[in-house]
Amino acid sequence: MDAGAHHLDDNAFDEDARAAVYRAIFTRRDIRSDFVAAPIDDSTLARLIRAAHHAPSVGFMQPWNFIVIRDRRRREKVRDIFLQARIEEECNVAEDRRALYRNLRLEGICESALNLCITCDRERARDSPLGRWHNPEMDLFSTVCAVQNFWLAARAEGIGVGWVSILDKGALKALLGIPEHVVPVAYLCVGRVSGFATTPELQRRRWRERLPLAELVMGERYGASGDAGLTKAIADLPAQE
Amino acid sequence: MDAGAHHLDDNAFDEDARAAVYRAIFTRRDIRSDFVAAPIDDSTLARLIRAAHHAPSVGFMQPWNFIVIRDRRRREKVRDIFLQARIEEECNVAEDRRALYRNLRLEGICESALNLCITCDRERARDSPLGRWHNPEMDLFSTVCAVQNFWLAARAEGIGVGWVSILDKGALKALLGIPEHVVPVAYLCVGRVSGFATTPELQRRRWRERLPLAELVMGERYGASGDAGLTKAIADLPAQE
Repeated sequence: MDAGAHHLDDNAFDEDARAAVYRAIFTRRDIRSDFVAAPIDDSTLARLIRAAHHAPSVGFMQPWNFIVIRDRRRREKVRDIFLQARIEEECNVAEDRRALYRNLRLEGICESALNLCITCDRERARDSPLGRWHNPEMDLFSTVCAVQNFWLAARAEGIGVGWVSILDKGALKALLGIPEHVVPVAYLCVGRVSGFATTPELQRRRWRERLPLAELVMGERYGASGDAGLTKAIADLPAQE
Repeated sequence: MDAGAHHLDDNAFDEDARAAVYRAIFTRRDIRSDFVAAPIDDSTLARLIRAAHHAPSVGFMQPWNFIVIRDRRRREKVRDIFLQARIEEECNVAEDRRALYRNLRLEGICESALNLCITCDRERARDSPLGRWHNPEMDLFSTVCAVQNFWLAARAEGIGVGWVSILDKGALKALLGIPEHVVPVAYLCVGRVSGFATTPELQRRRWRERLPLAELVMGERYGASGDAGLTKAIADLPAQE
């Protein structure tokens, strides 16, 4: 191995550290029903929020804020917003799936240790739209990267996260006093859990299957097959952790 | 420690594995100028794409596809789309920052080992909008979570990723044959790198500073201070890796 190649290898994590990153990715779950009563200490929560803050952001604008919601009354009001929205959403689900939909557990707003609303301030870098002029949604996307950082760091800390998207944003903004130019990108339930299931709940409940990965990969143009080498490499992947 | 508490602790990774996850988060960079010529083998690329495929998705719809672009001619055309967009964007940057903007390196389209376009098929689960009726952008957000998984796994593998958002999406869709109902969420440059800088390039180049985390945290309502315990815990965080 020459010195140049050795230098390149140095950029990769060692095998155990790589495995830890993949383990967080593969064993992360969207938690609804497995929250337990244990609190989250402040230093752990601080580490998770810092992980979110180190997400990539377009033009390094860091458009996010983090609203920590613990008050029981306020959470009950958020749950009311959810319950109303679920009724509205159910009418739009295909008729033969409505019974299954009704039986799904879709939030842990009051059972989790705390709620966290991650917002995007769309005016934070108004003067200099680096990377956002053609694609103004990039600030929202940056905020989503912060959510995913939080989620993966939480998994490593043994903390469960559930993203509740069945909410009317107008009602949520009114309840949390969020101004016009700020978007509540994610409303998260965060807490200790009894365990992390090995597969997503919607897969276990037969709402939908995991799609075969090779069919999702294309080469050069949309709809064209992926190249043979990559397709074979996907087929040969060892089972995940 | 009682048996119940012990069981809860079992959900957390051990110290080394936790540190590996945080290391991926803190040392991930948006790469533009540090790509080297070395190729990426198919099995590594397969692992990264599988990591993306294990992102959370609303209603488990898995709306993503992965278009791998290697062809030099096609990449030159993407770079032309970028160059045109950069000229248009520059006119909208505050006048006193335009010289700095012009000097920033903003893409590695032709220098990286390959390009990857991650798309969102907005019709993949049209019949059953679980979690999307009130917030139809959730399928785009799920796709962004896949991007962030890819990015963090790549960091662990020693592979650099740069997200190019200065592109006209209509021109990109035409070039890649992407149909109307599919959104190219992220156009990524992916390749081996000479190294990962310790801070974001836009911070080093004084485009923008990292914001103080405690100022971004609020309690109960937008604009209200975070609680004292959490604020102190943020101040007491040890320096990151």
